[in-house]
Amino acid sequence: MGPATHYFDLEQPFPLYRGGRLPHVRLAWEFWGELDADKSNAVLIFTGLSPGAHAASSAQDPEPGWWEGMIGPGKYIDTDRYFVLCVNSLGSCMGSTGPASINPETGKPWRLAFPELAIEDIARATRLVVEHLGIETLHAVIGPSMGGLTALAWLKQYPQSARKLALISTACSATPMAIAIRSLQREAIVTDRNFRDGNYTEDDWPEVGMRLARKLGMISYRSATEWQQRFGRQSQDYFPPTLFGMRFAVESYLETHARKFVGQFDPCSYLYLSRAMDNFDFCDSSETLKRMFDRCFSGEALVLGVKTDILFPLTQQKDLAAALEASGNDVTYQALPSVQGHDAFLADVPTFGKPIRKWLQ
Amino acid sequence: MGPATHYFDLEQPFPLYRGGRLPHVRLAWEFWGELDADKSNAVLIFTGLSPGAHAASSAQDPEPGWWEGMIGPGKYIDTDRYFVLCVNSLGSCMGSTGPASINPETGKPWRLAFPELAIEDIARATRLVVEHLGIETLHAVIGPSMGGLTALAWLKQYPQSARKLALISTACSATPMAIAIRSLQREAIVTDRNFRDGNYTEDDWPEVGMRLARKLGMISYRSATEWQQRFGRQSQDYFPPTLFGMRFAVESYLETHARKFVGQFDPCSYLYLSRAMDNFDFCDSSETLKRMFDRCFSGEALVLGVKTDILFPLTQQKDLAAALEASGNDVTYQALPSVQGHDAFLADVPTFGKPIRKWLQ
Repeated sequence: MGPATHYFDLEQPFPLYRGGRLPHVRLAWEFWGELDADKSNAVLIFTGLSPGAHAASSAQDPEPGWWEGMIGPGKYIDTDRYFVLCVNSLGSCMGSTGPASINPETGKPWRLAFPELAIEDIARATRLVVEHLGIETLHAVIGPSMGGLTALAWLKQYPQSARKLALISTACSATPMAIAIRSLQREAIVTDRNFRDGNYTEDDWPEVGMRLARKLGMISYRSATEWQQRFGRQSQDYFPPTLFGMRFAVESYLETHARKFVGQFDPCSYLYLSRAMDNFDFCDSSETLKRMFDRCFSGEALVLGVKTDILFPLTQQKDLAAALEASGNDVTYQALPSVQGHDAFLADVPTFGKPIRKWLQ
Repeated sequence: MGPATHYFDLEQPFPLYRGGRLPHVRLAWEFWGELDADKSNAVLIFTGLSPGAHAASSAQDPEPGWWEGMIGPGKYIDTDRYFVLCVNSLGSCMGSTGPASINPETGKPWRLAFPELAIEDIARATRLVVEHLGIETLHAVIGPSMGGLTALAWLKQYPQSARKLALISTACSATPMAIAIRSLQREAIVTDRNFRDGNYTEDDWPEVGMRLARKLGMISYRSATEWQQRFGRQSQDYFPPTLFGMRFAVESYLETHARKFVGQFDPCSYLYLSRAMDNFDFCDSSETLKRMFDRCFSGEALVLGVKTDILFPLTQQKDLAAALEASGNDVTYQALPSVQGHDAFLADVPTFGKPIRKWLQ
């Protein structure tokens, strides 16, 4: 969706994990650095729910990316050494096929006619780009947040296809608290009077629901400790007071984030990706985590998290690290000292960047 | 609101803390046990945001109350020894004057014409009942959750009027995280298409907003640990599936709680009480907590909390206990082992009851 975006089009039907199929799939992707002669230096980054493929700026596109401080020449993920690839998730709305795309069979946006999406589908769609580039084995796969689920879905479907694995503020499946929060976000969207079963228009956007969903998102992405330090009981005068609102700085902070998000992200994409996160289970409720890793991965693993994460609590990263280790892998596990909660990997790049650089080498 | 409810009517204007006045105030209250001859055995219980005065059953009203296991003959708060009093908070909708009451000057419900409510007003209205009963000094004041804010507002306005003070899962003011959560709950209500600036009707109720608010409430009242143990990734089949919802047991749990609440509580009452909690500051941003207690309270204090409370984190109870102690009081502080989060004082009565019984004697 920028001057550095590439597109891959699959001109044949793409069957989905839970049934249904897409007659056509387009994937938006970006890369940084150069693929070496034997195509052995590729680092694949899966994204969280809302970011697109533009993870970092480049000569072609100077716009800062969502992990700008992390990726670039000489940076923690060093594009002088690695070929770094990021694909906009299938189901998203930043260049790749999703519910906001035109269904070629009807000429109208898919919206709720889009088939049910699974995290496994996102991994499998990403594979199309990796194959298109002729990469057989990845040097590393890095998955923060939803991207971690996608990294696991990748390994489940393409065992032993990566030498290194980084799982960051993520889990093998969602906790009931995470499901509750996301379920409520979706309920806010689908009950917005403008949602109308997905038949919203640009002029009649489910803004109220998207705003509520984003604010609840921010509540789950950050931490009470951070906000206590940052806002305390400070008042605000940036926005005019509202009915029972907008006295405190934390309220204006949420409002600013919500306004930025509302117009940028398609409500249906949000719903599909959010539910896919709830439904994902690396172990498919039948296998142990250790046995899954026995089958899928042998190499150097990095597992990072923070204690203040509400959405993917540290205990989930501990479980991942323990299973990876029990499965005989070389594992670095770190509980990083950040008050920034789930968003710490975005908000506090140096703290995450240092262990990532070390593990990647 | 039940056969055991008493009413007190103030037939003269009641000025409010932040300006405005109510031409008439009615207060609904209940009591258990008998007031002794010198009126020295009264225990006043302030409530959380949503409960009414019916804290426990009695011969006149066998319906279980909101703290049923705690209060009664031989129970933790023993009504064979103490005269226990509970008043429905001013601004609520369970018998006491609030935004859902009829404004005598217009003959219509107050709704948004109700003047701004402060926690200090709830304490001062409660005082009317205490004075009506001729009680000068309370044996004890017990305040859980919002009731703890009200207990502090009581002491601020009536220093040295209680010999014992119990502050339970509460604080001297709200954290930005608590403000953010409540602000979002209010936004869900006021943006409901049926809210119409408070002009909702019984047939046209802001149900969607109230349901979202209640679900977010439950998310903030319980804990991730409890839900992990209780629900895990269990599925549910009690409710039919909804658009992107109702697959998991935790979703059906939230829905059950929301349905119970929606018709029971007045949306405007909710808004006024919720904002009053955000605005309350025992220290009025100018005084230290220790100096406030120096002035307001000398006696035996009990401060209880749980580590899993998101809404009133344990650090706030620690601060209260430290200040009470620095101020020379006899303080018992306990971080209780409960996974039930903020609601633990309701959900796990024996754990809270034992230290309460000991402190009360």
